Amino acid sequence: MSQGDPIAELVSLLGRLPGIGERTATRLTFHVLGSDPTYARALGESLAQIHGRVKRCTICGNYGAEETCAICRDPRREAELLCVVARVPDLVAIERSGSFRGRYHVLHGLLAPLDGVGPDDLPLHDLVARCESDGVREVVVATPLSVEGEATALYVAEVLRPKRVKVSRIASGVPHGGELEFTDQITLGRAFAGRKPL
Amino acid sequence: MSQGDPIAELVSLLGRLPGIGERTATRLTFHVLGSDPTYARALGESLAQIHGRVKRCTICGNYGAEETCAICRDPRREAELLCVVARVPDLVAIERSGSFRGRYHVLHGLLAPLDGVGPDDLPLHDLVARCESDGVREVVVATPLSVEGEATALYVAEVLRPKRVKVSRIASGVPHGGELEFTDQITLGRAFAGRKPL
Repeated sequence: MSQGDPIAELVSLLGRLPGIGERTATRLTFHVLGSDPTYARALGESLAQIHGRVKRCTICGNYGAEETCAICRDPRREAELLCVVARVPDLVAIERSGSFRGRYHVLHGLLAPLDGVGPDDLPLHDLVARCESDGVREVVVATPLSVEGEATALYVAEVLRPKRVKVSRIASGVPHGGELEFTDQITLGRAFAGRKPL
Repeated sequence: MSQGDPIAELVSLLGRLPGIGERTATRLTFHVLGSDPTYARALGESLAQIHGRVKRCTICGNYGAEETCAICRDPRREAELLCVVARVPDLVAIERSGSFRGRYHVLHGLLAPLDGVGPDDLPLHDLVARCESDGVREVVVATPLSVEGEATALYVAEVLRPKRVKVSRIASGVPHGGELEFTDQITLGRAFAGRKPL
């Protein structure tokens, strides 16, 4: 197929999505071509408009259709309990688990000095301001258990140290259903270090 | 997230693509939200416009940006040698293999009486007309080696029997790199039936 070909163009654009290689992109393109044009238009318009229709909550950074998100507007959610997450999908996963009834603070990133992401690139001043204005009692830091996630968690704790706020970190250990045999050394080390009386 | 939510809408639309479940659709949606809006708009517009920009070649049924496709317009492709395929992706795979230098005839389907697809739903009259007008010598039937593909191949041969056209079928056998141990009985049977002198 020649350049400027709409099929090649769609294959190339789809192929830039994570986990979608050229083969899958080609298969999806032919699937779309072979199915209802109404569907292709609906999907296309939804994609083209998504950035315009989705706003970041001005309080916590969660995505939503309005200025503030549904969680920040919900009076039943405890305002004195905050959970710090790196990305909105992490917030969605925590919501799905039903294990947290407070509100969130989404960093939209992690400290990564090598990639040029420093403390000023994360909304940490907003976090401190929220802790003061909302009388926050506890901040649970639920950044990933990776090097960058851990560094960011330590930095959040450091920033909040002068405030009257308890800062906690989600537990690290062997996951549910995990086999000890196939668990990495660092996780096993954390599982032992974090052991609790039975 | 509530109904009418643009995120939920995009997840649902992406989740209708083959091989993309709700988890992947969610991951893709957040990826798009986290990346350049220009990309989301380009992909969206490409999808929304694909049906309007892609035409079926009036001669062979291949996709292209013009009334006739690049292969039918190419004077170096033998017009007397036709390859019948079920779908355009099959044509693309054959082109990629470089094993055929003639032209194509795309059926955009296979005989499937149970699904209500009969001979009149496939462009077989066009195939006969092309054989007559272009002085076609040979028609290679490259429909899939499935029940429906085989039935369609036999029907194509039947339709062309009154014409002075050689009709052939692509070979069936053990694929390149295939282990005999893991090859199904039907394929092995075909490999033996189609054996050639060394």
